[in-house]
Amino acid sequence: MYDLAIRGGTAVLGDAVVRCDIGVTGGRIAAIADRIDAARQVIDASGLLVLPGGVDTHCHVEEPFPEGGHQEESWESASRSALAGGTTSVVAHTPQFKGGLLVEQHRAARARAAHAMIDYGFHQIIADPSDAALSEIPALVADGVGSLKAFMTYDALHLDDAAFLRVLQAARRHGLMVHVHCENYDAIRLATETLIAAGCTAPKYHATSRPPLVEREATGRAIALAELVGQPIQVFHVSCAEVAEEIARAQARGLAVKGETCPQYVTLTADDMDRPGFEGAKFMCSPAPRRAADHEGIWAMIRRGVLDVVTSDHCGFSYEGDRGKGKNGRDAAFDAIPNGIPGLAARLPIIFSEGVAKRRIDLPTFAKLVAENPARIAGLYPRKGILAVGSDADLVLWDANRPVTLTNALMQHAIDYTPYEGMQVTGWPAATIRRGELVMRDGVVTARPGSGQWLPRGPGVG
Amino acid sequence: MYDLAIRGGTAVLGDAVVRCDIGVTGGRIAAIADRIDAARQVIDASGLLVLPGGVDTHCHVEEPFPEGGHQEESWESASRSALAGGTTSVVAHTPQFKGGLLVEQHRAARARAAHAMIDYGFHQIIADPSDAALSEIPALVADGVGSLKAFMTYDALHLDDAAFLRVLQAARRHGLMVHVHCENYDAIRLATETLIAAGCTAPKYHATSRPPLVEREATGRAIALAELVGQPIQVFHVSCAEVAEEIARAQARGLAVKGETCPQYVTLTADDMDRPGFEGAKFMCSPAPRRAADHEGIWAMIRRGVLDVVTSDHCGFSYEGDRGKGKNGRDAAFDAIPNGIPGLAARLPIIFSEGVAKRRIDLPTFAKLVAENPARIAGLYPRKGILAVGSDADLVLWDANRPVTLTNALMQHAIDYTPYEGMQVTGWPAATIRRGELVMRDGVVTARPGSGQWLPRGPGVG
Amino acid sequence: MYDLAIRGGTAVLGDAVVRCDIGVTGGRIAAIADRIDAARQVIDASGLLVLPGGVDTHCHVEEPFPEGGHQEESWESASRSALAGGTTSVVAHTPQFKGGLLVEQHRAARARAAHAMIDYGFHQIIADPSDAALSEIPALVADGVGSLKAFMTYDALHLDDAAFLRVLQAARRHGLMVHVHCENYDAIRLATETLIAAGCTAPKYHATSRPPLVEREATGRAIALAELVGQPIQVFHVSCAEVAEEIARAQARGLAVKGETCPQYVTLTADDMDRPGFEGAKFMCSPAPRRAADHEGIWAMIRRGVLDVVTSDHCGFSYEGDRGKGKNGRDAAFDAIPNGIPGLAARLPIIFSEGVAKRRIDLPTFAKLVAENPARIAGLYPRKGILAVGSDADLVLWDANRPVTLTNALMQHAIDYTPYEGMQVTGWPAATIRRGELVMRDGVVTARPGSGQWLPRGPGVG
Amino acid sequence: MYDLAIRGGTAVLGDAVVRCDIGVTGGRIAAIADRIDAARQVIDASGLLVLPGGVDTHCHVEEPFPEGGHQEESWESASRSALAGGTTSVVAHTPQFKGGLLVEQHRAARARAAHAMIDYGFHQIIADPSDAALSEIPALVADGVGSLKAFMTYDALHLDDAAFLRVLQAARRHGLMVHVHCENYDAIRLATETLIAAGCTAPKYHATSRPPLVEREATGRAIALAELVGQPIQVFHVSCAEVAEEIARAQARGLAVKGETCPQYVTLTADDMDRPGFEGAKFMCSPAPRRAADHEGIWAMIRRGVLDVVTSDHCGFSYEGDRGKGKNGRDAAFDAIPNGIPGLAARLPIIFSEGVAKRRIDLPTFAKLVAENPARIAGLYPRKGILAVGSDADLVLWDANRPVTLTNALMQHAIDYTPYEGMQVTGWPAATIRRGELVMRDGVVTARPGSGQWLPRGPGVG
Repeated sequence: MYDLAIRGGTAVLGDAVVRCDIGVTGGRIAAIADRIDAARQVIDASGLLVLPGGVDTHCHVEEPFPEGGHQEESWESASRSALAGGTTSVVAHTPQFKGGLLVEQHRAARARAAHAMIDYGFHQIIADPSDAALSEIPALVADGVGSLKAFMTYDALHLDDAAFLRVLQAARRHGLMVHVHCENYDAIRLATETLIAAGCTAPKYHATSRPPLVEREATGRAIALAELVGQPIQVFHVSCAEVAEEIARAQARGLAVKGETCPQYVTLTADDMDRPGFEGAKFMCSPAPRRAADHEGIWAMIRRGVLDVVTSDHCGFSYEGDRGKGKNGRDAAFDAIPNGIPGLAARLPIIFSEGVAKRRIDLPTFAKLVAENPARIAGLYPRKGILAVGSDADLVLWDANRPVTLTNALMQHAIDYTPYEGMQVTGWPAATIRRGELVMRDGVVTARPGSGQWLPRGPGVG
Repeated sequence: MYDLAIRGGTAVLGDAVVRCDIGVTGGRIAAIADRIDAARQVIDASGLLVLPGGVDTHCHVEEPFPEGGHQEESWESASRSALAGGTTSVVAHTPQFKGGLLVEQHRAARARAAHAMIDYGFHQIIADPSDAALSEIPALVADGVGSLKAFMTYDALHLDDAAFLRVLQAARRHGLMVHVHCENYDAIRLATETLIAAGCTAPKYHATSRPPLVEREATGRAIALAELVGQPIQVFHVSCAEVAEEIARAQARGLAVKGETCPQYVTLTADDMDRPGFEGAKFMCSPAPRRAADHEGIWAMIRRGVLDVVTSDHCGFSYEGDRGKGKNGRDAAFDAIPNGIPGLAARLPIIFSEGVAKRRIDLPTFAKLVAENPARIAGLYPRKGILAVGSDADLVLWDANRPVTLTNALMQHAIDYTPYEGMQVTGWPAATIRRGELVMRDGVVTARPGSGQWLPRGPGVG
Repeated sequence: MYDLAIRGGTAVLGDAVVRCDIGVTGGRIAAIADRIDAARQVIDASGLLVLPGGVDTHCHVEEPFPEGGHQEESWESASRSALAGGTTSVVAHTPQFKGGLLVEQHRAARARAAHAMIDYGFHQIIADPSDAALSEIPALVADGVGSLKAFMTYDALHLDDAAFLRVLQAARRHGLMVHVHCENYDAIRLATETLIAAGCTAPKYHATSRPPLVEREATGRAIALAELVGQPIQVFHVSCAEVAEEIARAQARGLAVKGETCPQYVTLTADDMDRPGFEGAKFMCSPAPRRAADHEGIWAMIRRGVLDVVTSDHCGFSYEGDRGKGKNGRDAAFDAIPNGIPGLAARLPIIFSEGVAKRRIDLPTFAKLVAENPARIAGLYPRKGILAVGSDADLVLWDANRPVTLTNALMQHAIDYTPYEGMQVTGWPAATIRRGELVMRDGVVTARPGSGQWLPRGPGVG
Repeated sequence: MYDLAIRGGTAVLGDAVVRCDIGVTGGRIAAIADRIDAARQVIDASGLLVLPGGVDTHCHVEEPFPEGGHQEESWESASRSALAGGTTSVVAHTPQFKGGLLVEQHRAARARAAHAMIDYGFHQIIADPSDAALSEIPALVADGVGSLKAFMTYDALHLDDAAFLRVLQAARRHGLMVHVHCENYDAIRLATETLIAAGCTAPKYHATSRPPLVEREATGRAIALAELVGQPIQVFHVSCAEVAEEIARAQARGLAVKGETCPQYVTLTADDMDRPGFEGAKFMCSPAPRRAADHEGIWAMIRRGVLDVVTSDHCGFSYEGDRGKGKNGRDAAFDAIPNGIPGLAARLPIIFSEGVAKRRIDLPTFAKLVAENPARIAGLYPRKGILAVGSDADLVLWDANRPVTLTNALMQHAIDYTPYEGMQVTGWPAATIRRGELVMRDGVVTARPGSGQWLPRGPGVG
């Protein structure tokens, strides 16, 4: 007698796509069988795909600002958005402020996340690898932090090569993964100053200030320094094939280098930042969206396996409001606009629609991109990311043929817009199950705040 | 109530490695669950890995010779060897003789295979793509032949480019896969004539006559012609990284080109063909084994995914006897030695030991190389090659830590030697289950001749 | 006291561009000095460039047909065209007919060339490397033939790999260069048959029948076979960067592989073969002109040094007349149209104008492309191809700024059209001097028929 | 009537090697002719090669230290060494100290060089691209400085990316060339600290602290930043093929990136730094010499044209003495050893012997590597670097077959050792002529101190 049976669906089990029933006991998958009859609760999945719950290993939720306050996307709203879009686990970021330490931030982050309705972990950002900060890493590891995040750009966050090397060495010492935002800080700063001095302040100049070359250079450098230390890295949010080619070269040489991309890099373009009025600000993120022609390059790199993870890089700032893009950026220059776009709920629908429905990738590749591979690199596999006996019963029932027009209301996040407004997609989550509990059906999220769990991630990840 | 339960093992389910039980009904996997109690028969797999039965998509069994007679390795002896080594399905070859047709050969091949104890299909060799021969392809397709085999070398088999293009076009028309033996016929013939004229007749000159360059050239040409026609191909028995690099370039350009390798290319070397006396003949196959340093190159190409299938290219000729390597080659030149080596039983142990035990690849990669990927390219997936609900219950119970010294007796084939005599391996099949039936345990094969099944393979393979 | 002084010009002396006078004695350059006063004849080159006379190592002149007769472009008309365009030396082709021998053809070719007004040599085509034919090579070498030409396509000429290998071996034995026309015969034949069977007979289908891929494949194969034999080759008439990349890869590996291109590949396109009526036939040659976008690719490969020779591949067939493109092709299919275009006179003006005037290359590169490098690979350097003390006094006085509209009359050849009709160029030869004799001034050719010299070219070329 | 005739030699005139006489008037070449009779002075060059005087665009002479004093190699001793080795022109370095300006240093450098016996120019090092410093560039340009030098490593000199971008932009604005020392500062510093902390202080650890990877990374970064700005660069002292491959990739993409190497990278190895006692210090320079196997890689990159300049990077520190390697390094760690090796006199003999005599390159390539190409990139061509009418009459009469054992005495420099002590070379300068004056014969330098000339180098170099 199982607690729950999902019956009649077609499940994506790793590389296999199989007509089967799934039995759940104690929040975990207990059986995958041609027929499961004995269950206290039965959910009918006839006509639906059964996918592993999405794992989004790159998002920013309720992150505090150095000047006080935190992002408006709270753990509760982010959880709602994630579940609405079929994602059941995330890895968000814990900040470090220059001169500051780690443990206090980590504790505060965990406290905020206590309201989550999805399972969660944290990347620890290292913005200042002081001896004091690095000495706190064992405490983080003991609590289950499995990865560090390094930024090669942004005034408040960027590491020079010496600092980045210290981070890589610390990660190697403790068996942690390192995720890297690769853009050349100095080149962007110089271009930004030059553009603004020339009166080029509109949102579209954000893209001008950080062309693919600065992302490619930093990617090559991050890989070289990681090779020097002997530390695996994942390059975050690769925006175009020119950058991915650096990763491909490293992989061909046998290096442990992985690459991630995001829905924005197969849907948005630099031209979106040139929309009338100040609308362009809604599409502003880093790296900047590239040309439409680059979208196919990303898909080709996905098919080659060079890029094997798609996350949202959800980093929401509303258009209106005190912290909003408009208030802060409209009368200033592009570098004052809060940088980032929301995307938690849109990730699976966009990648399914652009990928599977348009026959660029197959179903198992989709599930690997949005669930299995993120779970692997985050050290969450096989607990998360796959439908297998013993794994957490995180499932999405997916209506593969349902046409949907994306709207901000469908996103269910706290942000007042979505950059994907009006986009037509095919395929939509009909229901989301988290550890055996039906937490979303037909867009209605029924999870209880605080029902999300902390996901300890161990050294020896991947 | 299942027919059979395999209990207590650790199963390799695609990318996942899971502690679970497996329930079998009607010869197929009916359930994968944390515990299965109700079964008529229970096999204890405690301490063992549970792997999908090996799929060997490249072997030669009881093939007829143009001059009459056929290979000494019969379907019965080949089946015994395969089951002893953990392989439950094979794709062998049906010949075409120059000037001859296809259907008659296909019927004869199927008649011979009626004694098989493993499941089987056939590649149809096209040695003479006459209109008459090609017109018979629909009849083959109707009977379930899913692939053509083209040879770019060998006097009796090689196709010039015009003929090869006709084969590619025919395959495209009928939705068949094309497998290609890539070596430049003219270059080998010229080198052979030159060597023999110079008195260089010993077995080792086999390698001299066909260096990597002739394999690389032919591989590049096969890929180019396949690209011209728009037909997927698989390059058979890639012997070294220099050749695989041609495939890697094609894959990076998005072409549907796959590459296979064999155990001999990670274990044997050209020096083996220079052993004292006439012993070198025992290691003679085409392409020729390369240098020891090339073995790591093959592993690197496997890890990159450029080569994703390992088969045996089992093609046995005894050392002694009328058809033997000795009788035919000892007093003649190397080109008169029957060409090929046996390897059905040794495939899984060698790849497991050299790959998994020596930590060059992980367990799921092993299962994909020897079972899932061959099944996919042969159009047998998901019926074969994977442990999934609904798939045939072909399983190997694998003792991962068992040390074994390879001997010819362990091979259980009809051939009087193995080129791997004396090799130490770690890991050995403890039992083999074919469609739910225990057919090998502790080396004792108990299958009934004729219990193997014909595997129809449909257009739209892969 | 010199026989001749060219005074006041700016000379291109290898990589150097120098204001200097040039003194000539006995038909050779005797002095290069800042001022030369003592000379029997003085030619004023003020305001003009002084370039080495063009060396065109790839042309077809008065070549006999297997069925009798020969090309309408005679040595006299070809010489006039060459001198009009600034070319003073050529290497043409001696045919071999299938089943035939070499020496008789060579003698006949030399006899026809006795009317030449330019200096000349011959490539010996090998269409049938029979023992008898190859045994005649020493006699050709003794007479000063320095190179063999191999065709990988064309019904009457193509060599399969075995024959090509024999040619490479013969060249190696005798120290000859091998020039190769690289296109895959079988692929072109199959495409041609398929197109014609489908009613696609217009000139434009010539391009369809032989896409870049068939040239790339054959180039890769020719290089591989030459590597196997250890014989240098030059790939003739490279049409696009995709093909040149194969040469670049070989050069990067240190192989002795060179690449040539022609003016048609930086000016004409496949669309020209689709001009109204039957006009397209005027632009038909092999390899076929590619896309306009490919022109820059050729220039890039020239700048990289991958392609270092530009010849005309002059092979004229008039539009009207018995042997004309119209009569033979208009009511037949594209494969019946006499294949080739004239270009002897247009070569230097087009490459100067498109290259130097449009700043794609500099002056020394121009002189190397059209004179020095052809002379080197033909074994004529330093006698030909350079302005140096001791070299033949072959010079062109070049009016770098003169605008000219190309017309057939300006070509001064026997062919009734030029594919470059109407093209605007900047730069034109004001005078041509051959071995110290002024033989063309302002378009008027004053050389005496028979004044051209046979150019013996020795083994150990390059 | 010429001032001087060099008679009977075989001259290397660009790509041509010609038996000719050379006439000199007013210090410049006035004629190159088969015979020159009328001259006030005749030098017999029978049996000798006549080469352009060596141009060494990378050396350090009498450079001041931040703490006061300057290198012991004075302009007089350096000139003697240069002339002894066949070099007639150099470009040395003018320092900038952090916080300091340019013009004062430039004036002081010119004052020191007033004692030179060779012609000379200066690269202006930019160690601190402050507004004040950059504002002085026009004054330098007005005086004939044509290039800037940027260091990516060394405590006192290295530029971070922001500073390097400022240098690139300044160079672009003023039409200057930028030469770059490419090694990753942070990575070297970290490795150095780690090694020393671990007690690894011997000279050999210099190589350990700066492996090829840190040079490759910095080279790729320098190229990317130069591409961003659109500024040509030359990468100094490339040490191995892995680094040169980054330059090759850039060149294949059409970027204006050049590469230089030095004799030490085809003769010395990291093992030399491990010689007994403290002898290893004599071979210490940056980048560090690599493995013996890397020497052929450098030659291959020279033959491909990827590296087209060979300079000495002469930077001498005696073994003994106050500023010596021994006194400063013996009781300290490797990072305290004065870094650099002398090589002015050894450059031509080593490259001729290892290159031409050992048939790795031909004579014209040799002359281009050591004279023409350095002159070109320094903006000194055609005044320097080539034997052409109008060029300065800087010539070396070269005895191609003379065997010489290198000793420190032969170097004629102020340094008390040569790293090439005992090396056997074939080929040696018999005489050196500078602007028509015989200044060295059989090792005896007869030039007058102060007879060297300042070489103004203009914007629009190359």
